[in-house]
Amino acid sequence: MEHPAVEKGFGSDNHAGVHPEVLQALVDANVGHVHSYGDDRYTRDAEDLMRQHFGPSAQPFFVFNGTGANVTALGSLTRSFDAVLCAETSHLHIDECGAPEQIGGVKLLTLPTDDGKIRPEQVRARLGGRLDEHQVRPRVVSITQTTELGTVYSPEEIAALAKCARDSGLFLHVDGARFANAAAALGVELRAISADVGVDVLSFGGTKNGLLLGEAVVFFNEDLAKDYRYARKQGMQLASKMRFVSAQFSALLEGDLWLRSAAHANAMARKLESMVRDIPGVEVTQRSEANAVFARLPQVVIPLLQEHFFFYVWDGARGEVRWMTSFDTTEQDLRAFVDCITVTMEQYKKEHAV
Amino acid sequence: MEHPAVEKGFGSDNHAGVHPEVLQALVDANVGHVHSYGDDRYTRDAEDLMRQHFGPSAQPFFVFNGTGANVTALGSLTRSFDAVLCAETSHLHIDECGAPEQIGGVKLLTLPTDDGKIRPEQVRARLGGRLDEHQVRPRVVSITQTTELGTVYSPEEIAALAKCARDSGLFLHVDGARFANAAAALGVELRAISADVGVDVLSFGGTKNGLLLGEAVVFFNEDLAKDYRYARKQGMQLASKMRFVSAQFSALLEGDLWLRSAAHANAMARKLESMVRDIPGVEVTQRSEANAVFARLPQVVIPLLQEHFFFYVWDGARGEVRWMTSFDTTEQDLRAFVDCITVTMEQYKKEHAV
Amino acid sequence: MEHPAVEKGFGSDNHAGVHPEVLQALVDANVGHVHSYGDDRYTRDAEDLMRQHFGPSAQPFFVFNGTGANVTALGSLTRSFDAVLCAETSHLHIDECGAPEQIGGVKLLTLPTDDGKIRPEQVRARLGGRLDEHQVRPRVVSITQTTELGTVYSPEEIAALAKCARDSGLFLHVDGARFANAAAALGVELRAISADVGVDVLSFGGTKNGLLLGEAVVFFNEDLAKDYRYARKQGMQLASKMRFVSAQFSALLEGDLWLRSAAHANAMARKLESMVRDIPGVEVTQRSEANAVFARLPQVVIPLLQEHFFFYVWDGARGEVRWMTSFDTTEQDLRAFVDCITVTMEQYKKEHAV
Amino acid sequence: MEHPAVEKGFGSDNHAGVHPEVLQALVDANVGHVHSYGDDRYTRDAEDLMRQHFGPSAQPFFVFNGTGANVTALGSLTRSFDAVLCAETSHLHIDECGAPEQIGGVKLLTLPTDDGKIRPEQVRARLGGRLDEHQVRPRVVSITQTTELGTVYSPEEIAALAKCARDSGLFLHVDGARFANAAAALGVELRAISADVGVDVLSFGGTKNGLLLGEAVVFFNEDLAKDYRYARKQGMQLASKMRFVSAQFSALLEGDLWLRSAAHANAMARKLESMVRDIPGVEVTQRSEANAVFARLPQVVIPLLQEHFFFYVWDGARGEVRWMTSFDTTEQDLRAFVDCITVTMEQYKKEHAV
Repeated sequence: MEHPAVEKGFGSDNHAGVHPEVLQALVDANVGHVHSYGDDRYTRDAEDLMRQHFGPSAQPFFVFNGTGANVTALGSLTRSFDAVLCAETSHLHIDECGAPEQIGGVKLLTLPTDDGKIRPEQVRARLGGRLDEHQVRPRVVSITQTTELGTVYSPEEIAALAKCARDSGLFLHVDGARFANAAAALGVELRAISADVGVDVLSFGGTKNGLLLGEAVVFFNEDLAKDYRYARKQGMQLASKMRFVSAQFSALLEGDLWLRSAAHANAMARKLESMVRDIPGVEVTQRSEANAVFARLPQVVIPLLQEHFFFYVWDGARGEVRWMTSFDTTEQDLRAFVDCITVTMEQYKKEHAV
Repeated sequence: MEHPAVEKGFGSDNHAGVHPEVLQALVDANVGHVHSYGDDRYTRDAEDLMRQHFGPSAQPFFVFNGTGANVTALGSLTRSFDAVLCAETSHLHIDECGAPEQIGGVKLLTLPTDDGKIRPEQVRARLGGRLDEHQVRPRVVSITQTTELGTVYSPEEIAALAKCARDSGLFLHVDGARFANAAAALGVELRAISADVGVDVLSFGGTKNGLLLGEAVVFFNEDLAKDYRYARKQGMQLASKMRFVSAQFSALLEGDLWLRSAAHANAMARKLESMVRDIPGVEVTQRSEANAVFARLPQVVIPLLQEHFFFYVWDGARGEVRWMTSFDTTEQDLRAFVDCITVTMEQYKKEHAV
Repeated sequence: MEHPAVEKGFGSDNHAGVHPEVLQALVDANVGHVHSYGDDRYTRDAEDLMRQHFGPSAQPFFVFNGTGANVTALGSLTRSFDAVLCAETSHLHIDECGAPEQIGGVKLLTLPTDDGKIRPEQVRARLGGRLDEHQVRPRVVSITQTTELGTVYSPEEIAALAKCARDSGLFLHVDGARFANAAAALGVELRAISADVGVDVLSFGGTKNGLLLGEAVVFFNEDLAKDYRYARKQGMQLASKMRFVSAQFSALLEGDLWLRSAAHANAMARKLESMVRDIPGVEVTQRSEANAVFARLPQVVIPLLQEHFFFYVWDGARGEVRWMTSFDTTEQDLRAFVDCITVTMEQYKKEHAV
Repeated sequence: MEHPAVEKGFGSDNHAGVHPEVLQALVDANVGHVHSYGDDRYTRDAEDLMRQHFGPSAQPFFVFNGTGANVTALGSLTRSFDAVLCAETSHLHIDECGAPEQIGGVKLLTLPTDDGKIRPEQVRARLGGRLDEHQVRPRVVSITQTTELGTVYSPEEIAALAKCARDSGLFLHVDGARFANAAAALGVELRAISADVGVDVLSFGGTKNGLLLGEAVVFFNEDLAKDYRYARKQGMQLASKMRFVSAQFSALLEGDLWLRSAAHANAMARKLESMVRDIPGVEVTQRSEANAVFARLPQVVIPLLQEHFFFYVWDGARGEVRWMTSFDTTEQDLRAFVDCITVTMEQYKKEHAV
């Protein structure tokens, strides 16, 4: 599969590189010997910073990637006969190659959704049926923040899901690959949509917010965290030279880099959305609440645009595409892209004029 | 657990940081957008370099860490009822928290060893017993190169194990967390102890040879490699910003960095060994063929040394310790350490004089 | 949970006991010592009988129960990153407590269905999307015969699914807990809806057709069967006193007991269906093609009937119930039940008369 | 593999058939319809009888076979990163085809043993080493009663192991495939070597003591039992026509059948042992405390005996064989066998006379 050789695109926030401040942190941490597997001062510092942002109940553990974070977190909350309720659009269900089932040891029970969000009434309805040992036992509700459709759960929505989960003896997990984008979009602290509203465990993403690599599993409950270090090791997510993961998180959190990067990506998406709304024939299909824009275009136009800018088709049958922005998207990038769309759409209209 | 605040020690080659040339490669790769998950030019370049070193049959896949490499590799060679023969001292058995069993889906059948190496006759003896469906089916022989005891398999020894495995329908896997050290010690190319002597799949280590993080699973058989991309993804070992793993391997392999670093670490260990051999009361217990020195000391001396230099006790009951060297160990480090041992041993002898 | 103390009901064909001829076969097999785990003449005889019914390509293996048959069969066809396409109503998905995922090592991808059957076009549509290593790899189509909704796939329908599966490199598995009922309903030999129409592996049910316990996994492909004996043992489905499972299958298959019992159960269901169709207010909701009747009743009537005869509510919200017949259902049982329904419905109508 | 067509042998207690009283119980239970999956009066009766024998804390669950009992029991006590300490001769390790690892989700850490028993000091020594997340976490001690070598743990020995386990936060599991033989040998009640001495969970065997099939997992701790019904179902060990498993246990336990059968088998083994002790050239190698005799014979003699009576070679290299007796072994069987050994040994001595 060959892709157009573009330098910037709208494919994914993981097509971007490393934020320069993060790269500098790697250089700065590259001094002398330190103990491996997280028994080092860089990791202790990063853990302290996590607690500053997520509150004193936070117990953070750094891992390699998002699937690793989600799967080891869910595995820690469940037995093999337990189930996780999640959106049918969720990354867990669609994009993790069965790792939640095969490594996390859970069964996913999916709920339909138009905007990527699941609602308490859906959870309650799903729990209302027959519950016996012939069926898996619902044990966790897992939501994605921001959702795979670029929408954002409000603190109130999360609190309601947490209450609904707790009332039925379930835990609430958040897949937060783009959690910083959500906090930035809502204008709240990271704890305001996690610790403060009843989340039990969070996969806090770093990679899509400018890290080279690195996610954190954050427990807000000491009991749940107790044996997680075994789960992380067995889950093949324990870095030996941990300082180089931890130092990246410190770079993100000791100042406001996490917020600057996420807010910038969000702003670029909102700007892109407002620009394309004005182009006749382009229909925005989701509220662009964070750093994604979903839109429908005439199907023949899509490959013409992709010759110049890479992005993914979301739903080929509907002509729906996804455009992601990242910490390094510039207004110039937007203008070039929007110009390209405008010209291509005009050409299309000429050829398909009625 | 607090450790002495030393800047350099002899604890492990993963206590060292990142080689400056590797760090520079990360900086150089941090340009623009590229596709994620390995569909990028940095990865294609690194794969080409791997084939230059390991021969045209090599099919390399980059992963995060050594446990991830071993476990996904072994999982690809086996069904759930298959077994892996390995040394009872192997990292697989001792230090991977059950990941080979729980994630790789194998049972380990261990063989005793004095020097970390297993022999064809041990394999044949183990295969000679009852073989029915009440028992797991031996399917892979897995060796560690260099071994956990710092010894090195010769090309002939590996070829003999490969033949023995093949004769019984088994595969040969090599856990090569320190594979470069072995090649450097033997003075051979990387392929001379892998592709050329019948190895089926290799876990080729980068982290302990100066990378920030990164290992490669290398198949020497197209059929075995065919579905591995699924195994890597499900095994939570697929980096999204893959270019930053690949670029490190390119830094290692495009010149002779892999060899310079490994040979240097080996030379430091041999030097350390020769220096401590002269200290009365210190007994070297394994042939130091790569970058480790194993030695016995009076038990009371060990914590006194550890106040100044960190290292691990290998066998507390026997007073046996392990000293590892790395790409950044200097002769000055050796002298300081040997001086410390010498002084401490003299003091010990004074106090325990007969 | 207390149930009404009825002697006969319409709850499930596994509420019935053991057919007297099967029980006699157990008595007859209880002579002397024989080897365990299937290395005995009773098992060899039963295997021969299976090949007489299913054709010479059949490789049968006896196991304890239906979940065991399904899960070990599917596990034998798949790697951990493989998926099984099945109906959203399937026993696999709903009633096996996650065993397919956790023990079979597959992910289930469900397809919607009104009548319990999946169609080739659904399979093709599901295979038409994105296929990369982020997603599980479809590898098996699994259908239930007779379906959980009492419907029956025709030989032509199975052949079409088998072709569709094969064209895409997938296998076709049949969960045949009530396979004999299907063959009886269609008036065909057992091989006519398995070996002869491209089924790769069948879970052939015995328990619901009058056995004390016992199912068979039948492979129609030597390669697939090759290592299954390990999968059965590891799957905890290998009986030590195997002769007592095998002898039951011989009782079922050496004459026409399998057909007599299944045809009788089917006839009782058809009779029940025709009788209840005449009762005003009772709506039959599925074609009763085998030994089940699905019907809707006023919701308040259901518990009144259950005071006298046990049966399951299928869909409480819709007032839909399931009535199963078995080899020992008598016309007298039907009359008593239908009388009860008639009287209860009349009473209901009186009370709810408009 | 063809075996001599003998009617009685000394191969295994699972080569015997079903005790007539057990078979009668199956016939008696074959009346009318009852609910499936254990919700029936036969199962409630059997559970009551289990509590009479094992004490009021006992929570019994019936399953199909011994591997199923062991694996689901151990899985209930552990997380995926937990380990089970067991004898290197244990059935768990040798004869369950990796099911403890792959389905139970544990790693087995084996301890050497001459007589099949493990000792508290071995457990303590194994727990004394390094304990960190790189290693699996010891969580259960599992012993076999009677052991695979025919020896029997005394109540005191079990109590000591239970204390040792509890002191370190571990559970004690007993694989009791031949538990009745142990109680009979010791002359104690079943509870005296389980509930009363600190066992947490027991796999209580029925099959080898005259059942057609059936084992029980017995928890002596309510918390541990709490979710086991899910583990049994997912573990594919939940019989649908459960009454026919339960009724067998009632037959075993409502009178003294369990004891009569076990004591008889034991007596036959002791008698066999005393008879063969007198034959020159036969060396008894283990104390015959239950229903097994282990002996060494000249290697060439073994196949000559096997032409007439089936039994297993235990250790071919040493010429060690295992002779098992069962509930249906008669004194006549013993005499015929001993005569055969005597004659064959005399012939051997003649031919090899010095």
